[in-house]
Amino acid sequence: MDLALARELSQEAETKIVLFVMDGLGGLPHPETGRTELEAAWTPHLDRLAKESICGLTVPVATGVTPGSGPGHLALFGYDPLVYNIGRGVLEAAGIDFDLQPTDVAARGNFCTIDGDGVITDRRAGRISSERCEELVAGLREISLGDGVQALVEPVREHRFVLVLRGEALSDEVTDTDPQKVGVKAPASRGVTEDGEATAALVNKWVSEAQAYLVDKAPANMLILRGFAKRPDWPQMADVFRMRPAAVAHYPMYRGLAKLVGMEALAVGPTLEDSFAVVRENWDRFDYFFVHYKHTDAAGEDGDYERKMEKIEEVDAAIVTLVEMEPDVLMVASDHSTPAAMAAHSWHTVPFMLRSKWARADDCGYFNERRLALGSLGTFPAKEAMPLAMAHAGRLRKYGA
Amino acid sequence: MDLALARELSQEAETKIVLFVMDGLGGLPHPETGRTELEAAWTPHLDRLAKESICGLTVPVATGVTPGSGPGHLALFGYDPLVYNIGRGVLEAAGIDFDLQPTDVAARGNFCTIDGDGVITDRRAGRISSERCEELVAGLREISLGDGVQALVEPVREHRFVLVLRGEALSDEVTDTDPQKVGVKAPASRGVTEDGEATAALVNKWVSEAQAYLVDKAPANMLILRGFAKRPDWPQMADVFRMRPAAVAHYPMYRGLAKLVGMEALAVGPTLEDSFAVVRENWDRFDYFFVHYKHTDAAGEDGDYERKMEKIEEVDAAIVTLVEMEPDVLMVASDHSTPAAMAAHSWHTVPFMLRSKWARADDCGYFNERRLALGSLGTFPAKEAMPLAMAHAGRLRKYGA
Repeated sequence: MDLALARELSQEAETKIVLFVMDGLGGLPHPETGRTELEAAWTPHLDRLAKESICGLTVPVATGVTPGSGPGHLALFGYDPLVYNIGRGVLEAAGIDFDLQPTDVAARGNFCTIDGDGVITDRRAGRISSERCEELVAGLREISLGDGVQALVEPVREHRFVLVLRGEALSDEVTDTDPQKVGVKAPASRGVTEDGEATAALVNKWVSEAQAYLVDKAPANMLILRGFAKRPDWPQMADVFRMRPAAVAHYPMYRGLAKLVGMEALAVGPTLEDSFAVVRENWDRFDYFFVHYKHTDAAGEDGDYERKMEKIEEVDAAIVTLVEMEPDVLMVASDHSTPAAMAAHSWHTVPFMLRSKWARADDCGYFNERRLALGSLGTFPAKEAMPLAMAHAGRLRKYGA
Repeated sequence: MDLALARELSQEAETKIVLFVMDGLGGLPHPETGRTELEAAWTPHLDRLAKESICGLTVPVATGVTPGSGPGHLALFGYDPLVYNIGRGVLEAAGIDFDLQPTDVAARGNFCTIDGDGVITDRRAGRISSERCEELVAGLREISLGDGVQALVEPVREHRFVLVLRGEALSDEVTDTDPQKVGVKAPASRGVTEDGEATAALVNKWVSEAQAYLVDKAPANMLILRGFAKRPDWPQMADVFRMRPAAVAHYPMYRGLAKLVGMEALAVGPTLEDSFAVVRENWDRFDYFFVHYKHTDAAGEDGDYERKMEKIEEVDAAIVTLVEMEPDVLMVASDHSTPAAMAAHSWHTVPFMLRSKWARADDCGYFNERRLALGSLGTFPAKEAMPLAMAHAGRLRKYGA
């Protein structure tokens, strides 16, 4: 279902939808046991939910495509990630509550380390502290570009910051200065189109002055920029789905993402208990809660099979709290797979279940990749999760007479 | 994934992909045993591969659609056959290494038999020998069309030949003179559009002179033409997927098809051992091998359930050779079903498995239609096989931030 049809069919209702995202949940078999992280984890509560749910495996973007976090989440929100494409700069800016203007161009920045020849040796400058990041950003704010263009800089955390160029006639049609690997120099930005050339020149001027400032600030003696983008003007969930949506996410990027589709990003602490408490406190104010759990992905990215298993078990133990709030629709889903065996995001299909009193529950029996594959949803596009939830929540009108 | 996205995400890698196509593999249950050809065949090696593979059933073109050999293969190469549509004439011409020019119009020809009233009694003229075909073609080459248009004729094999009209302003918007059945006369060609009318007139002039020449050449006393088409200008696999693709196919049509998407068609003998030897000899020169096995389809077309079963078992015994080359991705697939029970191509879904060390193997256990249906790939479009293979071969970049 595309958003135009969703807008046509959506209706208000007195029902609650919860989307619980275990980031990077999908895994791969351990070479010794042949079991995925999810198969190996002890998950009696998730398994019980599976017995009461319709089940399947989602394809976040398209078959074979490894999604970034943005596309993976947008799909779960009902937005086709091949249509609603987002620049990293915008995502980072939104994640720190930066109020991007329509003419602004934002980029994600990394402080990095270069050697005497200008070759990048560490793309994260040894993950400098957030405090050090703030000090360096303060210095970068002194750079003046002139020509009526401001260069706004905001720290994110550790080695990461956001650069926002503000002025008239700026373009985001420029290339990254982040080569996404070490062992090479940071390239100059270039205009992808003629429109972009003037902005690329401004970027290069700013980088050059920044480099002069950072020269004695090792390990953060250089910076790299990527994902230049303007704020997209997307349909908002409240309009499309006629609901009040909230995001319960601790990490900036996921908050930023949620805000781009019109969710209210609620303040929340770092733990799962914090997240569930925020849901409970705000139960009456919203119809839809996106609850984000980061640690499964982080463990997967670190290639830590055991920790990923433990993080899954942590969720299993806690999820009762969420179930007890009795949402009309509860989805346990994920934005992509992050198999510990690959220590990276991957293209593999992604566990999904949806529990509702109106669900025709499947016989999968267990919440893991191989059992969910037997569910009636089969392997299906993640963007269909939202219409499924809407339907089970009584929030979609009949189509046609 | 369409080819534009594939072009955006594809990256080079040091990996090998093998697509092994058992033509017309899908079958239907035998009325006595209730088992399909594949279920009845003894296939320990294929079954073992299935245990290490992700599994499913492919839909070559669209649900319910019976594919010709062209669409069935194009889908497996990653080309949506509803977008990349090919005329039979072009396929035949490419299959005999005929160097089609962009303005040429090619058609597939059959010598056929007509009775005294001009009614077709055998669409294949009793399958005359290839030698006889060559003699008749030599005669047809004497026909002159004038007006700066040449009529080039080339034998294919048995009753089949290719007609290529060469000149300026020719159109392929003309109808067939092959009624695709016996008991009727061959219709005249007509222009489908105004553009096509002049070309249709040339076709009819040529057919009329050909008939005069063939009048005393029974059983080949007439000919019929179909699939008028110009050479398509399609994206090439090397550009789209950033790989070096090779075709290992003995039959002309499949070689021709492979060449249209930019594969190098390697010289190969008729046996499975020949095919696998060619793969091995060329292992370092290419990244992707399409290996074609014809006999399963031929047995199915003949309605010979037993022979089809035997041909499947022949593959099972030989496939070890291919596995031992250790391709990073091995797909065992097919272009369509050819159930012996129907003695024809059919719309039924098609067996598929993909083996890779990065595959999250399914629990199907056996390589047959009913077990593969339980795989995590479910029933999916055949055109997704290529992105899947690319992903498992580490040849697709991440999408989005």
